Amino acid sequence: MKRLLKNGTVVNVFSDTLDRENVLIEDGRIIGVGAYTDDEADVVEDVTGKYICPGFIDGHMHIESTMMTPAELAKAVLIHGTTGIVADPHEIANVCGKNGIEYMLEASEGLPLSVYFMLPSCVPSTPLDEAGAELSADDLRGFYENGRILGLAEMMNYVGVVNDDREVLAKIDDAVKEGRVIDGHAPLLTGKDLDKYVTAGIQSDHECSSFEEGCERIRKGQWVMVRQGTAARNLDDLIDLFDEPWNRRCLLVTDDKHPADIFHDGHIDAIVRRAVAKGKSPCAAIRMASIQAAGYFGLKRTGAVAPGYRADILILSDLDKVEVEDVYARGEKVVSQGCLTSIKTPSVDSSLYDAVRNSFNVRLQEAADFFIQPESDRCRVIRCIRRQLLTEEWIAEIDWNRDNGIDLERDILKIAVIERHNNTGHRGLGFINGIGLKKGAIASSISHDSHNLIVIGTSDEDMAAVANAVIEQGGGCAAVCDGKVLARVSLPIGGLMADTPAEEISREHHELMESIYSLGASEEVAPLMTMAFVSLTVIPFLKINTFGLVDVEKQEQISLYV
Amino acid sequence: MKRLLKNGTVVNVFSDTLDRENVLIEDGRIIGVGAYTDDEADVVEDVTGKYICPGFIDGHMHIESTMMTPAELAKAVLIHGTTGIVADPHEIANVCGKNGIEYMLEASEGLPLSVYFMLPSCVPSTPLDEAGAELSADDLRGFYENGRILGLAEMMNYVGVVNDDREVLAKIDDAVKEGRVIDGHAPLLTGKDLDKYVTAGIQSDHECSSFEEGCERIRKGQWVMVRQGTAARNLDDLIDLFDEPWNRRCLLVTDDKHPADIFHDGHIDAIVRRAVAKGKSPCAAIRMASIQAAGYFGLKRTGAVAPGYRADILILSDLDKVEVEDVYARGEKVVSQGCLTSIKTPSVDSSLYDAVRNSFNVRLQEAADFFIQPESDRCRVIRCIRRQLLTEEWIAEIDWNRDNGIDLERDILKIAVIERHNNTGHRGLGFINGIGLKKGAIASSISHDSHNLIVIGTSDEDMAAVANAVIEQGGGCAAVCDGKVLARVSLPIGGLMADTPAEEISREHHELMESIYSLGASEEVAPLMTMAFVSLTVIPFLKINTFGLVDVEKQEQISLYV
Repeated sequence: MKRLLKNGTVVNVFSDTLDRENVLIEDGRIIGVGAYTDDEADVVEDVTGKYICPGFIDGHMHIESTMMTPAELAKAVLIHGTTGIVADPHEIANVCGKNGIEYMLEASEGLPLSVYFMLPSCVPSTPLDEAGAELSADDLRGFYENGRILGLAEMMNYVGVVNDDREVLAKIDDAVKEGRVIDGHAPLLTGKDLDKYVTAGIQSDHECSSFEEGCERIRKGQWVMVRQGTAARNLDDLIDLFDEPWNRRCLLVTDDKHPADIFHDGHIDAIVRRAVAKGKSPCAAIRMASIQAAGYFGLKRTGAVAPGYRADILILSDLDKVEVEDVYARGEKVVSQGCLTSIKTPSVDSSLYDAVRNSFNVRLQEAADFFIQPESDRCRVIRCIRRQLLTEEWIAEIDWNRDNGIDLERDILKIAVIERHNNTGHRGLGFINGIGLKKGAIASSISHDSHNLIVIGTSDEDMAAVANAVIEQGGGCAAVCDGKVLARVSLPIGGLMADTPAEEISREHHELMESIYSLGASEEVAPLMTMAFVSLTVIPFLKINTFGLVDVEKQEQISLYV
Repeated sequence: MKRLLKNGTVVNVFSDTLDRENVLIEDGRIIGVGAYTDDEADVVEDVTGKYICPGFIDGHMHIESTMMTPAELAKAVLIHGTTGIVADPHEIANVCGKNGIEYMLEASEGLPLSVYFMLPSCVPSTPLDEAGAELSADDLRGFYENGRILGLAEMMNYVGVVNDDREVLAKIDDAVKEGRVIDGHAPLLTGKDLDKYVTAGIQSDHECSSFEEGCERIRKGQWVMVRQGTAARNLDDLIDLFDEPWNRRCLLVTDDKHPADIFHDGHIDAIVRRAVAKGKSPCAAIRMASIQAAGYFGLKRTGAVAPGYRADILILSDLDKVEVEDVYARGEKVVSQGCLTSIKTPSVDSSLYDAVRNSFNVRLQEAADFFIQPESDRCRVIRCIRRQLLTEEWIAEIDWNRDNGIDLERDILKIAVIERHNNTGHRGLGFINGIGLKKGAIASSISHDSHNLIVIGTSDEDMAAVANAVIEQGGGCAAVCDGKVLARVSLPIGGLMADTPAEEISREHHELMESIYSLGASEEVAPLMTMAFVSLTVIPFLKINTFGLVDVEKQEQISLYV
């Protein structure tokens, strides 16, 4: 069946021009761009006054951060014009290992959204982490046979790269041998250290936070992924990279974007829109969002409206505002007038599905499990800093006689990280300041990067209750007060993803947040986000894992007691 | 061993900037670009006031046209700053089939010049051709295992592509499946035919002869190879492609360049030099000559002065004049102050070498072999047009009583194409006008694309003598007068290549041309060049092959007699 899009204006990403051309499509490919007529097609779509634009590609994202399954994500982003994503299944791999990657591959197979993956390079993220799995170079190697595996995902272990860590280099070598790309993650790395990192084969970075940092990377041959997600928003600082010559070596990515943000704000379209609003060329921004992503990842004949190219095409009613009206994925019309046509959900092997849906392997909790043995009156308290993932160490006098050290007046709450993958019984207990709960407790199985069960509360009883609420639903987040569950988000897939649409997750999430605010934690604290990173032992200074407190700079466990 | 190039100015092809940086090299790779100091290196080269530039890559050339072996070619072009070439062994494949390709691979293995190949797509060029071999998709497939095979070479059979010829599509499909590139060759193809050709997977073209033609191809997603060789010189007409945005999708190629031209004029450096002299940006031209060629062909970490990149580096004493002083190939200094260091010639398997050195399989000729049986007084004569490869049909009255039809007054000479690969005894005989010989005869085994033995002469005796001179030396070109050999160029490898340096071939060639001019053919006629293409049955209108005259437009044999 041949389909003609006529009377439109093609956004040409090779010439950065707007060309009045008709576009002919057959068998999922564009077969002609030119003076084609109605009689050459079976179906004719008149797109007078509109723009025919290549579909957008997100060059780096974590599907898990959207809390959606690949199929639900496809629905959420296709309407925003994203027809391809390159995902790093780092989170689910930390929970479910190879099964997690397999699940992601199967759950995204055959979607109208082209879903590619990079292999998670750092599982677990550090030797201190007690994740659900460990992935060696041997474990990863076999995945390269799958055509949707494009390379090695963000190499966060730049210390390992710079110091020639054997296992790290083996993973890099495998990707190089396979002729695949290797993404970087090395914020603020510069000069000779950056040279060493780039020389090792790391070809991109999405952690740039200044124009100068981006320029240095481009000069050194890296591609810069301009990131605009939920927490990390680098677009404004990197806006000059949208100019020549820099834009030729940039792509656009979201990295981590929450369901509510995707639902309300959009996806890659939102980045293009904002860049254009800031005065940048729509052609250049669209080029960064399409052919350049395809070029970087070696995706053939993808990312342009040109003969032979995959017919991933957007019809925009407004170029500057990036108003997506229709979307064609491999030549099929999947979005019409902004509305999605039905999408078939890929079937996942049932044992694989069971594996990722039953990621919790931990017994139910009791209040006594949260009791801290008093050994010293002076303890290290994790002090959270607003709007930052950094934490500080606060040496505080603990009044053990008062609720086993919890002190609502000084905002000293109890925090627990409960190993939940292998039922080891490990748990780290400590105190945290800066969250602001005045009653109840909150818990979440989103806890970077090992995704153990993390609980913060004002009483051991409520901590046990909220932990059990999450355990019983097989993952997610919840808020409890006086033993009663106030709200919850159910994330049964790996404890990370729901199987409901963005809108519903967004609504549940909103209700949960309102409940948490009702317990006293203010919006400014971003309590769930803060909680999700308080266990990430790569961000300074004082963190907590399943064994207790961690001195991030020394990369070692440290006693609660001073 | 670490080598430091200090105090130079790096030509940065990512940012199009000239950066004052030091460059550190180790194990054939650049490992740092920045403020490195003497104590970080074992060898320090001070290049104050000079430019540190990536080595040039010729994106499409026929080594056979240089008449040199790969090793001699390496010597000839390295001093001009070419560190990589992508060659189409089309000519030797037409003579020796798979052996010809194997020979080229072995004879170029391990040279400091990085020699890559595309697989000849059209051997023989047309069904009318009686070449030394026929290469099917099956024959080609196995070659993709070699890492230096980058794809399928210029697909000249655009009629076959546009009409879905099964064998042509099989060759294309194989290249696509292997993820390799497919070069095009489709002069003046435009509009819907071009769409079909591009849709089939043809990703580049080197036959563009106007800016508009180049723009159309770039808009449609093809890469344009700006060609400047010996006969075809498109640079001046395509000069505006050196501007943005077009230059982003262009590379530089020589296609066919003769040894004398390489010796006197240069190689890719000559193209960059001329573009700069015409006011174009040196950074852009160098980018087209380096990273963009590497990018198009999927060569990883090649074509830039950046960390991790192969240390193919030029030291230029003048940027605008592209004065190449030193050349580093994979970190080794192979040219110093314009002089070549010694280059090891690759060893070729002896049976393979014998095969390509004994490509002549034809008996010695006698004068009687050139006799034409008079059947009609009106004959079709091939009329050559000065400075064109096109020929016309001239219906002439032949006076058979006078030298079997040869008529020096009307410049009607005799021409013969003698099958020389398989001793079939086939020979095409006819008459040719426009060459201008007044005595003697000339012969050559360079006769596109089948490279049979072609002879033009003023007498049957001298035609036999000159044919035998070429046969006895196993290939090449010669001029004879009254039975005496005046001059010759010996090309024993496939009848196409010498094993002597460019300078020597150039000198021999010059002597031969002087001899030919002494026989009456003027320089303006370009007699050897004209002779080399009078058997190419894809260029209109009247040509001659081993079976006699060919009507190119009808693609069929046609009688000598009217």
